[in-house]
Amino acid sequence: MAEHATNMRLKLPIVCIVLEVILIILFGTLVEYQSDAHARDWHRSDLNKTKKPDYENEFYYRYPSFQDVHVMIFIGFGFLMTFLQRYGFSSVGFNFLVAAFSLQWATLMQGFLHGMHGNKIEVGVESMINADFCTGSVLISFGAVLGKTSPVQLLVMAIFEVALFAINEFILLSVFYAKDAGGSMTIHTFGAYFGLMVTRVLYRENLDKSKSRSTSVYHSDLFAMIGTIYLWMFWPSFNSAITAHGDDQHRTALNTYYSLAACTLATYAFSALVNHEGKLDMVHIQNAALAGGVAVGTAGEMMLTPFGSMIVGFLAGTISVLGYKYLSPVLESKLKIQDTCGVHNLHGMPGVLGAIVGIITSVAASHEVYGKGLGDVFDKVSPERDFSAQAGMQAASLGVTLGIALLGGLLVGFILKLPIYGAPPDTLCYEDAIYWELPGEESGSEELASVKTPDESEKLNG
Amino acid sequence: MAEHATNMRLKLPIVCIVLEVILIILFGTLVEYQSDAHARDWHRSDLNKTKKPDYENEFYYRYPSFQDVHVMIFIGFGFLMTFLQRYGFSSVGFNFLVAAFSLQWATLMQGFLHGMHGNKIEVGVESMINADFCTGSVLISFGAVLGKTSPVQLLVMAIFEVALFAINEFILLSVFYAKDAGGSMTIHTFGAYFGLMVTRVLYRENLDKSKSRSTSVYHSDLFAMIGTIYLWMFWPSFNSAITAHGDDQHRTALNTYYSLAACTLATYAFSALVNHEGKLDMVHIQNAALAGGVAVGTAGEMMLTPFGSMIVGFLAGTISVLGYKYLSPVLESKLKIQDTCGVHNLHGMPGVLGAIVGIITSVAASHEVYGKGLGDVFDKVSPERDFSAQAGMQAASLGVTLGIALLGGLLVGFILKLPIYGAPPDTLCYEDAIYWELPGEESGSEELASVKTPDESEKLNG
Amino acid sequence: MAEHATNMRLKLPIVCIVLEVILIILFGTLVEYQSDAHARDWHRSDLNKTKKPDYENEFYYRYPSFQDVHVMIFIGFGFLMTFLQRYGFSSVGFNFLVAAFSLQWATLMQGFLHGMHGNKIEVGVESMINADFCTGSVLISFGAVLGKTSPVQLLVMAIFEVALFAINEFILLSVFYAKDAGGSMTIHTFGAYFGLMVTRVLYRENLDKSKSRSTSVYHSDLFAMIGTIYLWMFWPSFNSAITAHGDDQHRTALNTYYSLAACTLATYAFSALVNHEGKLDMVHIQNAALAGGVAVGTAGEMMLTPFGSMIVGFLAGTISVLGYKYLSPVLESKLKIQDTCGVHNLHGMPGVLGAIVGIITSVAASHEVYGKGLGDVFDKVSPERDFSAQAGMQAASLGVTLGIALLGGLLVGFILKLPIYGAPPDTLCYEDAIYWELPGEESGSEELASVKTPDESEKLNG
Repeated sequence: MAEHATNMRLKLPIVCIVLEVILIILFGTLVEYQSDAHARDWHRSDLNKTKKPDYENEFYYRYPSFQDVHVMIFIGFGFLMTFLQRYGFSSVGFNFLVAAFSLQWATLMQGFLHGMHGNKIEVGVESMINADFCTGSVLISFGAVLGKTSPVQLLVMAIFEVALFAINEFILLSVFYAKDAGGSMTIHTFGAYFGLMVTRVLYRENLDKSKSRSTSVYHSDLFAMIGTIYLWMFWPSFNSAITAHGDDQHRTALNTYYSLAACTLATYAFSALVNHEGKLDMVHIQNAALAGGVAVGTAGEMMLTPFGSMIVGFLAGTISVLGYKYLSPVLESKLKIQDTCGVHNLHGMPGVLGAIVGIITSVAASHEVYGKGLGDVFDKVSPERDFSAQAGMQAASLGVTLGIALLGGLLVGFILKLPIYGAPPDTLCYEDAIYWELPGEESGSEELASVKTPDESEKLNG
Repeated sequence: MAEHATNMRLKLPIVCIVLEVILIILFGTLVEYQSDAHARDWHRSDLNKTKKPDYENEFYYRYPSFQDVHVMIFIGFGFLMTFLQRYGFSSVGFNFLVAAFSLQWATLMQGFLHGMHGNKIEVGVESMINADFCTGSVLISFGAVLGKTSPVQLLVMAIFEVALFAINEFILLSVFYAKDAGGSMTIHTFGAYFGLMVTRVLYRENLDKSKSRSTSVYHSDLFAMIGTIYLWMFWPSFNSAITAHGDDQHRTALNTYYSLAACTLATYAFSALVNHEGKLDMVHIQNAALAGGVAVGTAGEMMLTPFGSMIVGFLAGTISVLGYKYLSPVLESKLKIQDTCGVHNLHGMPGVLGAIVGIITSVAASHEVYGKGLGDVFDKVSPERDFSAQAGMQAASLGVTLGIALLGGLLVGFILKLPIYGAPPDTLCYEDAIYWELPGEESGSEELASVKTPDESEKLNG
Repeated sequence: MAEHATNMRLKLPIVCIVLEVILIILFGTLVEYQSDAHARDWHRSDLNKTKKPDYENEFYYRYPSFQDVHVMIFIGFGFLMTFLQRYGFSSVGFNFLVAAFSLQWATLMQGFLHGMHGNKIEVGVESMINADFCTGSVLISFGAVLGKTSPVQLLVMAIFEVALFAINEFILLSVFYAKDAGGSMTIHTFGAYFGLMVTRVLYRENLDKSKSRSTSVYHSDLFAMIGTIYLWMFWPSFNSAITAHGDDQHRTALNTYYSLAACTLATYAFSALVNHEGKLDMVHIQNAALAGGVAVGTAGEMMLTPFGSMIVGFLAGTISVLGYKYLSPVLESKLKIQDTCGVHNLHGMPGVLGAIVGIITSVAASHEVYGKGLGDVFDKVSPERDFSAQAGMQAASLGVTLGIALLGGLLVGFILKLPIYGAPPDTLCYEDAIYWELPGEESGSEELASVKTPDESEKLNG
């Protein structure tokens, strides 16, 4: 019975095909190349201006950053979640599926809300980066529910989350004119609290029946480190991918680089300190060392200075390790929030910290420090809107983000609770075998082959 | 006896050293830096022009794309083939060897045929990309014969295949003036059908004696996913690496991105649909999800639109999964084509589809859509050669490619059948131990250590 | 007792926190953005010049190279060392920690010595690359002592090595005006001989007590190949990262690409040749195939030609394999140098070879070959200092590098020998379990779970 319920033979194909057909129709109706990618438009020289030289095509300013972000989304997030011993296929595979869907859907939703030119959504390297950013937020939420949801559930979650992400982003960037180039608020805070609320609604009282598979094995932790290191290395590209050309991209990359370096030392320090034998914990290293990237997502493009970045990174690593050690167990036992990857510690708290750092850095800004470069960072600061007004809008943005994320997560959680998506039973969470054809054990190892795989033994009991 | 025959102690060193010495002599005689890489030539300012500014050096337009292509060749192809449980060293290692040889040899062969300036072959970032492309074609053929050939056989195959690749490419690009920037025809169709013909000639009736090793294990599939994801992420760079500057590179990357996203949803849909339990098959995910990149290799630089790209990607993913499920077994049983990696499904059919899409997109092109950007894409379209003539040449190119690939593969297959290269016996295919010093099992696990590894048990029997 | 001594609970946090606090204070006092990353300075247009266009920001010339270098440092070095069966967490994890510290500390030390503007150290994309380079040198030394040191020891080593690196680099580049863009001398020779001297001083007579863990297992070798392939692919970016704009970066990338390709064929040839069964050895493939990148680290930016690069690469691969096979055992038995990763073969000898190639290429240079591009490569060659004087300075640089590395390594070795850092006992070298919380074996495999892990059995005996 349980087996039947998780059968994806019709559910998954129907959902994938219907969604893709709708996407194709909408793209056919609404989407066209932006002028930098359009044969005719790029070569057009108007009366009062000649064609731009090729090296000024937006592609060359942003495509390397885009590819780094792309690696973070597909390798970074995908492999970071392979730490579970029996959930590697699903971690990488569902990450792949959900991301491939989300980036198309995000292109449309973000286009509707802030990319329309005439009646068309224009696409180019910037829309690709923004779609990947939105996808990142969905994948953060995926981290919270990892191992407890079917691929159909994840796609349904993505449908709603992408839409809500785009609305929140629109309010922050186009109504409040807040700054958030690296997405401390729009991506990390939003994705984390949305996912936490979803996993709260999907609370499983008997999840400990799958406890044996909720941990890592030696090589699964090494696979996860591939994800970690790629996220860590390319985070400077992530935060700088859509900042203004020139000094802004340059400075954002620098700030993120220093923040992450300081964060890493804090992570190792506190990981050893909170362990009674002084041993390092892979969960901390894999996750908390990245919190420094999250925490400069808002202020990274500002004149935060390397000094400021390192302080922020150090704080982020510290609160993240402490969160894994002391807060996560409480969230689970008291608030019934089962946060598989600990996204609250990696994206939630560091995201809020990043928003606060953005408020402080805005309020501390001055015309003297930014000079003629002010417009690139604070384009709305003017005699009518001074730096403290900007800071106020940054604060309001954090509030709105938390509100939409929590309410949206609540709503979507209840939608995902419907018993129609083929979610795994409590006894088969964190288990690839229900959604994947699994290979046998290594040939020749007869003794190994005779050992029952967890799914088989559980099927017998289940 | 069989053991002795596979001993590489003299064969491999002799082949490698002789080939490298020949390469070095030919490079010494024939190769020089193109002007963008030459100290004197780049700084030369002629009477009627000043030195180009550094940012116009070809390096900055193409080097990031080159590195992405490079990752696809060495990590992408290399790890994609590690899915076999006992052939990971050979997959990555022979991929590495064959690629390192092929890129040097391709530089010469492509240079002879369409890169001579005076009496010299000029090398630069474009020649590096083109050499990597040719190498990709060889590695596709490697996928068809994976596990059944010695490294010497692979090098001999590469010698011939690179030469035939360069001839075919010359006919397509310099005689027919066909367009094929991402190589649907030159790289994928050619490499696949060449490899399929080679593996047909090398047919092994008793290959089922190695059947126990022809499948994956859990972690080998995860290693293979590293290859898949890198190929998927960087395919936009692959298809756009040698298109014209500006809008062309930009548009090609966009088209490929959308095609792959749509292809991924089709792959998951049909993978679940064709399995009676609705379970996903790693073989499909690892391979078919990439077919969307292959299928826009010709038309990606054209004004295919995101809409068109997504339709193509969706079709490519669909036929690729169906090919793995229904066609490959028939090819093996009826046509005696043992296609280890299923390159017919990933590169063969999607490559032909890509060629057809190129024909259709050419015929549907118009001066209105391309404006002054026409020359970048269809540089030979003129009053004398209209769009339908271009389409005709695209069609002829597909035919020529199939012809050279099949005839070439037939010829090279017979050359490789000579019993002098140390090919593995039927009982020891897909086995690293015959060509590699293998490490023991993990220390401390006495029980594991006592289990005979397949090669050892087979040696006893063999 | 031994267990207690390796407890990091206080040592590691104290060292990390104290170091990071000092770094933060020094950054706060001394560091500011270079003008290309500074909002005000980048937008400043002086009386006699207008603001540079954004595409001339140093960021766009170098950031893609920086990211490739970054991948080499964190993925390349980190995973290359995961070949040990029980030391994967430490290899990647301590690599991560040591690198995150070193890049900050190197920014300061290199800044003190050759990056001061006014009273400030200016940071930007070039300082990031240089800091990563210095870090690379520390990680080479880490390779020599891998498995035998505690993380605290490694951090202490890094403190001193970074300082000595910066001094050596200052002498070579700012006193001798030697050329060494890819660091054959400054990075590879220095890092290798420093590390070899450290491991000599830390000689362990009873290291064979940990012998069972000093080898690889099947999948650990595949993880290591990830490191190898990334180092191999991105080495062209490494060597060209800080060369002059335009033809210089372009040519350096080309030379490195060809050197590595030739090196790979030599590696395979000699690896099979020195094995009595003709089998390839993963140690050679993982390491010697990279020696070609090391050996063109000095001359890569010069007009070495692809021909010259290939000869150098071929030689480098050959001596590296022969070193692993014949020299390393002698170094260990006669000179008591226990070089875990064989850095003498990958970085030491090829680095010296690279320095010699640099001398030869300098002496063979001419005004005719370089034309007006001479100043980019040999900026100090003039009527007063001809090519042979330059060559002399290159030779002096090699001597100074060897001297500082060996003396520095000797000194630091004795510092690291103090029994206060929690180094592992002879019986527990190459073992993650003393510094990491290790996961259990895969659930459901009761037979596996009952097998004692090496650390547990050793603890019982220890």
